[in-house]
Amino acid sequence: MSRVLLTGATGFIGAHTLDALLLGGHEVHAVARRAGAPRGGVVWHDVDLLEPGAAERLSGDARADSLLHLAWYAVPGSFWSAPENERWIDASVRLLRAFGEAGGSRAVMAGTCAEYRWGAEVLRDQDTALGPATPLEPGTLYGACKHATHIAVAAVARQLDIALAWGRIFFLYGPGEPAGRLVSSVVRGLLAGEEVLTTDGHQRRDFMHVADVASAFTALLDSDVTGSVNVASGEPVAVREIVTLIERAVGNGRVRLGALPSRADEPDVIAGDTLRIREDVGFSPSIGLSQGLSDTVSWWRAEARGNSPPHHAP
Amino acid sequence: MSRVLLTGATGFIGAHTLDALLLGGHEVHAVARRAGAPRGGVVWHDVDLLEPGAAERLSGDARADSLLHLAWYAVPGSFWSAPENERWIDASVRLLRAFGEAGGSRAVMAGTCAEYRWGAEVLRDQDTALGPATPLEPGTLYGACKHATHIAVAAVARQLDIALAWGRIFFLYGPGEPAGRLVSSVVRGLLAGEEVLTTDGHQRRDFMHVADVASAFTALLDSDVTGSVNVASGEPVAVREIVTLIERAVGNGRVRLGALPSRADEPDVIAGDTLRIREDVGFSPSIGLSQGLSDTVSWWRAEARGNSPPHHAP
Repeated sequence: MSRVLLTGATGFIGAHTLDALLLGGHEVHAVARRAGAPRGGVVWHDVDLLEPGAAERLSGDARADSLLHLAWYAVPGSFWSAPENERWIDASVRLLRAFGEAGGSRAVMAGTCAEYRWGAEVLRDQDTALGPATPLEPGTLYGACKHATHIAVAAVARQLDIALAWGRIFFLYGPGEPAGRLVSSVVRGLLAGEEVLTTDGHQRRDFMHVADVASAFTALLDSDVTGSVNVASGEPVAVREIVTLIERAVGNGRVRLGALPSRADEPDVIAGDTLRIREDVGFSPSIGLSQGLSDTVSWWRAEARGNSPPHHAP
Repeated sequence: MSRVLLTGATGFIGAHTLDALLLGGHEVHAVARRAGAPRGGVVWHDVDLLEPGAAERLSGDARADSLLHLAWYAVPGSFWSAPENERWIDASVRLLRAFGEAGGSRAVMAGTCAEYRWGAEVLRDQDTALGPATPLEPGTLYGACKHATHIAVAAVARQLDIALAWGRIFFLYGPGEPAGRLVSSVVRGLLAGEEVLTTDGHQRRDFMHVADVASAFTALLDSDVTGSVNVASGEPVAVREIVTLIERAVGNGRVRLGALPSRADEPDVIAGDTLRIREDVGFSPSIGLSQGLSDTVSWWRAEARGNSPPHHAP
């Protein structure tokens, strides 16, 4: 029942998170460069957080108790190495300070599994009986800028007495996904009747439906958990299994597994330890992969008919 | 014999580093908000690196091969927790990218011992036979913003193929030190004939003369070492010993050790492992504490007579 400032509110995760927050009874001050559709319980703020003074004006206008910061540079493909990542460090730090100085006391921000040193079978957000927390050693500019942001905002939060949690996102899919990512590419290609070329797909990834990711962030915000938390399913699936499920759901087109070479620097498994999110936050995902992919295919079919539900990627 | 872009060139360390670079035969493009005195081998740039576009214009103008970035917010006392620290993350990242995009290939930046988790007797910049590298877990906003900067610039350097070293500064003293820090406060108080109150001074710190710090950074720049390097002596001294040496050098005034309470959160020892800087960089400090403090007292005497050598703190 708090007033939540939600950034990235028209993005892939943000749009679903807006739904989840409203469902949870929150009043939402939603931030995007271009406001979304008007709806009850939502105050839109058209704000570009990269503009000087934007965070300060926004925080003063919204006077929110809680902050859920999802905005970041997210163009498929280029986000791994684009210099825009660097701008979001400063924008995120400014936002947290402005939010705290305007009286805010609870914040959740979006991190990434790309902050970890990849290679271990399970990436741990904390020390557990099975092993220590995984070292943070990002191999990409994206992961490094997220990790740098976390280091800085954690210190700002301590200084301003903000209870900060940092949710590390793994792999996701679902309605509203931008074109050009794994699931969206395969679905669209098959729906168009194309032959879709993929790697052999042996690599296993920790995938979660975007609506579950949104519920996880909402649960994390509503909890009193602070620090780093994997927003993960803990159940890695082979990419070839995902592709095969999509092929079945579409019912036409053809996937050629193994037609593309695997990338040498890609680890075999990327999966998150989920003890914290399950036990401390009390969240577990509820949408199975088969059902989730089938829903995603339906959404893209509707999209192709110009008739999709409101979860439009920008 | 390269062209070096030196930021913070009128600061405490920067002014000494400018001398050391010129001595080493470098051409120096020196950056400060207000230019220092004209001298041979130096091109001054009056630039505020916190201004938008400043780093890009500066890098285009200087076209330097090497970057030595010392500029940061450094007001005694307040630098530990001032929000200005947050601005220097972005300024430093922008500077490294602009420098690299203008053709620069070697960079050294100033980090701090405050990036480490304090508590261990020796803070290690690398795994050694005696133990693993010390965890980076800054307890202050200053330390956190430096560490965040390192995470981000390391990724930028990888992307732009810049050979980056990160020199972690410990404790320092010497001519030109801003008033209000440990050594400068005690020296000035005693020279003014005041009774100087201190803690019991049992805590041991890794102190280095600022001219040695400047030589260390110059040696690091001239080396091909990359990654984190402690700029430390490896020989912690008790603060009470320093204070007593100053008292002797001044010859008047009186120090009351133990008149102030020790801070509960201060570790007993802060000292750096020096294997890397000694063996990989080939540097060791040359100014003994007794001589260094005596020189510092002489400098402050001259300063009090309005007659000091050029190493003026701003």
